Amino acid sequence: MSAEIRVTLWNEGIHEKELPRCKAIYPDGMHRVIGAYLKGKPGIAEVNYAELSDPEQGLSEEILAKTDVMTWWGHTAHDRVTDEHAARVQQRVLEGMGLIVLHSGHMSKPFMRLMGTGCMLKWREYGENGERERVWVVDPTHPIVEGLAESFELPNVEMYGEPFGIPKPDELVFISWFQGGEVFRSGCCWRRERGKVFYFRPGHETFPIYYNENVVKVIYNAVRWAAPNRMAMPAYVQGNTQPLEKME
Amino acid sequence: MSAEIRVTLWNEGIHEKELPRCKAIYPDGMHRVIGAYLKGKPGIAEVNYAELSDPEQGLSEEILAKTDVMTWWGHTAHDRVTDEHAARVQQRVLEGMGLIVLHSGHMSKPFMRLMGTGCMLKWREYGENGERERVWVVDPTHPIVEGLAESFELPNVEMYGEPFGIPKPDELVFISWFQGGEVFRSGCCWRRERGKVFYFRPGHETFPIYYNENVVKVIYNAVRWAAPNRMAMPAYVQGNTQPLEKME
Amino acid sequence: MSAEIRVTLWNEGIHEKELPRCKAIYPDGMHRVIGAYLKGKPGIAEVNYAELSDPEQGLSEEILAKTDVMTWWGHTAHDRVTDEHAARVQQRVLEGMGLIVLHSGHMSKPFMRLMGTGCMLKWREYGENGERERVWVVDPTHPIVEGLAESFELPNVEMYGEPFGIPKPDELVFISWFQGGEVFRSGCCWRRERGKVFYFRPGHETFPIYYNENVVKVIYNAVRWAAPNRMAMPAYVQGNTQPLEKME
Amino acid sequence: MSAEIRVTLWNEGIHEKELPRCKAIYPDGMHRVIGAYLKGKPGIAEVNYAELSDPEQGLSEEILAKTDVMTWWGHTAHDRVTDEHAARVQQRVLEGMGLIVLHSGHMSKPFMRLMGTGCMLKWREYGENGERERVWVVDPTHPIVEGLAESFELPNVEMYGEPFGIPKPDELVFISWFQGGEVFRSGCCWRRERGKVFYFRPGHETFPIYYNENVVKVIYNAVRWAAPNRMAMPAYVQGNTQPLEKME
Repeated sequence: MSAEIRVTLWNEGIHEKELPRCKAIYPDGMHRVIGAYLKGKPGIAEVNYAELSDPEQGLSEEILAKTDVMTWWGHTAHDRVTDEHAARVQQRVLEGMGLIVLHSGHMSKPFMRLMGTGCMLKWREYGENGERERVWVVDPTHPIVEGLAESFELPNVEMYGEPFGIPKPDELVFISWFQGGEVFRSGCCWRRERGKVFYFRPGHETFPIYYNENVVKVIYNAVRWAAPNRMAMPAYVQGNTQPLEKME
Repeated sequence: MSAEIRVTLWNEGIHEKELPRCKAIYPDGMHRVIGAYLKGKPGIAEVNYAELSDPEQGLSEEILAKTDVMTWWGHTAHDRVTDEHAARVQQRVLEGMGLIVLHSGHMSKPFMRLMGTGCMLKWREYGENGERERVWVVDPTHPIVEGLAESFELPNVEMYGEPFGIPKPDELVFISWFQGGEVFRSGCCWRRERGKVFYFRPGHETFPIYYNENVVKVIYNAVRWAAPNRMAMPAYVQGNTQPLEKME
Repeated sequence: MSAEIRVTLWNEGIHEKELPRCKAIYPDGMHRVIGAYLKGKPGIAEVNYAELSDPEQGLSEEILAKTDVMTWWGHTAHDRVTDEHAARVQQRVLEGMGLIVLHSGHMSKPFMRLMGTGCMLKWREYGENGERERVWVVDPTHPIVEGLAESFELPNVEMYGEPFGIPKPDELVFISWFQGGEVFRSGCCWRRERGKVFYFRPGHETFPIYYNENVVKVIYNAVRWAAPNRMAMPAYVQGNTQPLEKME
Repeated sequence: MSAEIRVTLWNEGIHEKELPRCKAIYPDGMHRVIGAYLKGKPGIAEVNYAELSDPEQGLSEEILAKTDVMTWWGHTAHDRVTDEHAARVQQRVLEGMGLIVLHSGHMSKPFMRLMGTGCMLKWREYGENGERERVWVVDPTHPIVEGLAESFELPNVEMYGEPFGIPKPDELVFISWFQGGEVFRSGCCWRRERGKVFYFRPGHETFPIYYNENVVKVIYNAVRWAAPNRMAMPAYVQGNTQPLEKME
């Protein structure tokens, strides 16, 4: 695992400007709250921010090249991320960049391209205060749960429920219980060529989820887990090759 | 599992016309050799053929709608399958159609879209006669190995070697040994929403692989494995939903 | 998959004799209710019954030899199954017999030996009527969910909750939601050498769970799924072997 | 992951005393060669040694309690490890201790208890010099392959071949190619309650395998991977529990 991880926190950044309730909770954007937690933690070398409104949508070759792990929050403008940029993010993951997809990022272009499925789910915003979620650890050996208890509660959330149209996770880390009667695979890991992908459900624009100590701890653990290996192995190539053994 | 499976054998169908050596082995196309084996076997209701040169590239909505399991052989013309048709095949898999991807189909558009990776690999055509492959069963509980011994040999093949740029298989069924020193994950299963995907390595345009009894037996078993479930569950949808429990 | 499956329904058979409430629901034993459902269904050749109080605890070599799939219900007398008999069941699974472990069978000796873990969990019997469980399908491609909807409810159950001390399931089929706030991996598949194992949570001695249409449908599907492959491959052996290739 | 890992290298320690060829290669025991490599590496706090001939077979409660990760080499005396001691090792793994099982340890009692299967395989010692093995990385995202190339060669080895009677690995890291025509799943990970288990094939008493840079690098990586999480979660318990939600 790289000892010195450079993180880029990518944020759609629209709700924070347009929804008063979101702006009140996250005046500088959700990514800045997460970034403030990550900054200076062991293993984290750099915390950088990128937004959809940045040049090249915050996804220039330069930015991607110097990112070991990217977190992704998007919701209302998935379609405004260009196909070219989405393909670029996908390609960087295949080459080794870790990708942490948060909450409504489940239908973002980079995630859907990496999954190969529609990534659809059930959802519900119940009244003013949402409903209660309890996130259960189902793999206590996983580095992503370091420091957690067997479950933690989020008192006011938007619900996401099964069926969730994802490939079978390579590692299933969390399962959520919801007050309204649903369950959800809330923490899921996949490996795509040289890169690791983690989907983490919690987080919503109108609830202060990213101030929750357990939630940001999971994101921090996930950043460390998703950091690329250093290997003497090139990126995947399609190629003609000579025999390694003497042929008769 | 559907008792009455309708299979469509899709074939690029170019080498059979353009390469004399291929034409000599498969005068009517590789798919017809496989189809002749499948026809009339228990569980198989219909065997249909489709080719790239057919109207709508053999991938019309009508054909897909009446296909429970599709096999796919392509190599030299992956790029000529339109993005629209590739997306259509992907969509049908998500809705339940089984997809059996053969040999060089590893870089076909539908497979790559379903995997989310580059699907690249090492390869080698060694001289006139290729080299020896030994296919080892590593999951004897899998329906795809019904009737097989612990391994089988293919005396003259093109080599495919690791690293193979696929997602971790949900089920790994076969590992191949090659004379030249490589190994390969030769039989791999994935589940994508309602549909099953099986990649099976053996098969090449200039060797008579699809006349091998073990190879076609595996394809038959895979067709049965990949047939869709009949369920009282709709296709995946993204949707707002009401609570199932009384909320306080 | 064997077309003609011989099922043996093994039952501890104590609660039915000693608990009036259990006796009232299951006068002939829980296994007979399940067996009555299985009998005559497609693929099922024989339905046999065995109990702890039978000679050799219902686990003689003769019985095991002619069983393709065994279901197991035990609770209060796990320790009375001898180590020798438990080892015999384990061995038969390794040779190919399917094993469907029901409800409190999670701490039965054969299951624990096959898992290698303690298989512990949280539980609760809430008052007279228990609480509500909703069983969610999370793998709609799995043969075990054939014919089901996306979820089904059981209005009165004993709760089982995470953490559940099992190895990671090879296939996770169901996740349960409970009224009291817990979740549970309710349908889990493992493969052990030549044999398949399915753990299915629902079922309790004082609730009429095995009269529920969805529950017995799952058990029937699981029996079909767990039936052994017919292969030209011997059971696993440790053995010295000659080279398959000419050595220099 | 614990930053300061205490490793205990357990060694049967018989071949080194009884086989002149083994003694010549490993005068102080195989474990000391591995230990010398581990000592002082980042993350490693302590390297301790234990042998079958030690008091309590080197597996006292005291030793286990202060071991974060144990490596295990055994071959000729698996049966002399008492059932009580094997159960103790298994129990410590369930509580969090990492276990790295080397080469012929595949039939050691602790490993077999944790797997639930017979763990049998094919093997061959070919002549004086054995044969060539090529170990291929099939999961480049795994921390266990940090620093490796896509494959590495071991020129003189005992062969281990499929079928290998293990449960499906939770993560498959290496596949070996052998000169004589076999393949083998050479690096396999499993998670058992709170503990991680890694089986690594290379290593034999009469070849100097543990002097190979790649082999010991993998063992070092595996030690770091297998170190237990620190969590605010107790060990698994079977227990009656109160509702977390208000019940109607």
